Amino acid sequence: MTAQTPPIEPLAIDGDEITIIDQTLLPGEERRIVITSVEEMWEAIRSLRVRGAPAIGIAAAFGLDIAARLSPATTPEALLADIDRARAHLATSRPTAVNLFWALDRVWNRLTTSGGDVDTLRSIVRDEALAILEEDRAAGRAIGEFGAALLGDGAVLTHCNAGGLATSGYGTALAPIYVAHEQGRNLLVYADETRPLLQGARLTAWELSRAGVPVTVIGDGMAASVLTRGGVQAVLVGADRVAANGDVANKIGTLPLAIVAHTLGVPVYVALPISTIDLSIATGADIPIEERDASELRLFNERTIVPDAAGVYNPAFDVTPNELITALITERGVIRPPYEPALRSLVEGENQARSS
Amino acid sequence: MTAQTPPIEPLAIDGDEITIIDQTLLPGEERRIVITSVEEMWEAIRSLRVRGAPAIGIAAAFGLDIAARLSPATTPEALLADIDRARAHLATSRPTAVNLFWALDRVWNRLTTSGGDVDTLRSIVRDEALAILEEDRAAGRAIGEFGAALLGDGAVLTHCNAGGLATSGYGTALAPIYVAHEQGRNLLVYADETRPLLQGARLTAWELSRAGVPVTVIGDGMAASVLTRGGVQAVLVGADRVAANGDVANKIGTLPLAIVAHTLGVPVYVALPISTIDLSIATGADIPIEERDASELRLFNERTIVPDAAGVYNPAFDVTPNELITALITERGVIRPPYEPALRSLVEGENQARSS
Repeated sequence: MTAQTPPIEPLAIDGDEITIIDQTLLPGEERRIVITSVEEMWEAIRSLRVRGAPAIGIAAAFGLDIAARLSPATTPEALLADIDRARAHLATSRPTAVNLFWALDRVWNRLTTSGGDVDTLRSIVRDEALAILEEDRAAGRAIGEFGAALLGDGAVLTHCNAGGLATSGYGTALAPIYVAHEQGRNLLVYADETRPLLQGARLTAWELSRAGVPVTVIGDGMAASVLTRGGVQAVLVGADRVAANGDVANKIGTLPLAIVAHTLGVPVYVALPISTIDLSIATGADIPIEERDASELRLFNERTIVPDAAGVYNPAFDVTPNELITALITERGVIRPPYEPALRSLVEGENQARSS
Repeated sequence: MTAQTPPIEPLAIDGDEITIIDQTLLPGEERRIVITSVEEMWEAIRSLRVRGAPAIGIAAAFGLDIAARLSPATTPEALLADIDRARAHLATSRPTAVNLFWALDRVWNRLTTSGGDVDTLRSIVRDEALAILEEDRAAGRAIGEFGAALLGDGAVLTHCNAGGLATSGYGTALAPIYVAHEQGRNLLVYADETRPLLQGARLTAWELSRAGVPVTVIGDGMAASVLTRGGVQAVLVGADRVAANGDVANKIGTLPLAIVAHTLGVPVYVALPISTIDLSIATGADIPIEERDASELRLFNERTIVPDAAGVYNPAFDVTPNELITALITERGVIRPPYEPALRSLVEGENQARSS
């Protein structure tokens, strides 16, 4: 399956020029900034100009490409030392982002196992970064095609931003929407605004509008009303981590959506790349839930909205039990319950494909 | 049942001085402003310095008191004409607030049926406004006592601000919490921030903290996680309107809470004054749902958070079906299903008590 031009390019490569969309300016302004140094890439990841697990991994890999290109080293040892310094530095940009380490390690392992002269090493870094980008794009496209087959005309409800901006351009939850739209389906997307960081209002609404997909933003507490009114064919969300039994950790606010949709008989689809499946985790109960800084809820645009005397609880994710999920959409196809055997064979198949 | 000093006085009377807490400054600043003219009261209601259905009614009634006091009229006819002008003007401050008209009409009907000289008429306005305040306070206290009997130690989850600030001081959903706290129960209140206007974060958290009740603010999408973790003894919310069958229209975001709580076996209590029950409405399907301005979701603190190209859907209320509600808490006692006969006899009893 070839990756066509994605609906959006949060990170784009044109020869040696690497540009990113500065997501902190969205939705007010679409500005591409040129990244010319490791430090600028570090800052872009740190400041959330690039965000979303796959996009962070891709950005980090291209950070190593910049390091290799700018290094004055004339020996492989000196070049590897410069790249390793960049790797250590980039790893500090978002220390909880698993994809960041995965991408940095993948490029580094390729480099150290291949070896070669400085030109060869520079090519390896570039090729591996491009491969990470292309694989993500192909996976997004495949998720989109498998997922689009589940959608007819009508409304879809999504949460947070599991979109092109978070990846190389198709996204996960939004990929089926982009492909179905391209295939001529008549869609309306309800996007939860997704407090506290408003990724649905700011990012999902922006990228869908930009691609010509009609989108309506609602408050997180309004989804139940929208589902009750009828006419929504599916809830479609992404995943941060999937346990071996199919329980899904995703952005906080996914669980109530799944409970409400399940109660009302609306299908709940979770779209994810296979890399998100973690067979070492038996059930969702074993997934650690990150608590984020209280300031995300206490302040908005520097204005205090919670009194100092009150506490704040700000979990980043919730866990949706597998029995509320109608199907999982991956780049290898759609999985239906019981999830455990299907997830195991999928991950094992993927591992064999990678090692062959 | 006598009304004790409420936890908060959003509108306070000290001789001829009428003060209100300017709720638009909360939670940053607690400032009481003195209302010295009909125009100032109109502006306070219009600008949401006073908000919440019962509080608006009380404020409007005292607006008429100010009109009567400041009128230079020396004949009953001239005084009534001045009061009537104030009545017409105050009615335009929040044209969708039912309690506003109810309170203005109640004072006016009392005036026109009683008659008397200018001093008598001025006394009637003041007495009727005080009666509206005192009845609301007594109802809040009674709801609090009946509701507190349902609560043990532990956590309670609430939505929006059905609190003292919205009424004469006890509130509806928060009244049982205040009374249970006063009785020594060990409570922790989870307050949904309640998008888009953040009444939970700004107002509920503020007034509970001020009264010494521990409160933790969460995003609306976090309630399901909190309920899933266990330890929450009840969901406690207010009501904007209750249909004859017990379906409840309340602030948007109540329905998903009720669905999640019902799914998890957590009791859902709705606290309401009997005046909220509308027997002319058979079921929740007949309750019209106000859609509020899109700017509430598009802008925050003057910053654009939804792209212009995207639509916005902003319903103010949702309807929770009676089968999700464990009990209704009123100032005459706790009602359990089946609701319809109990609601009918309650409203009829109230009407008899008022007409006797």
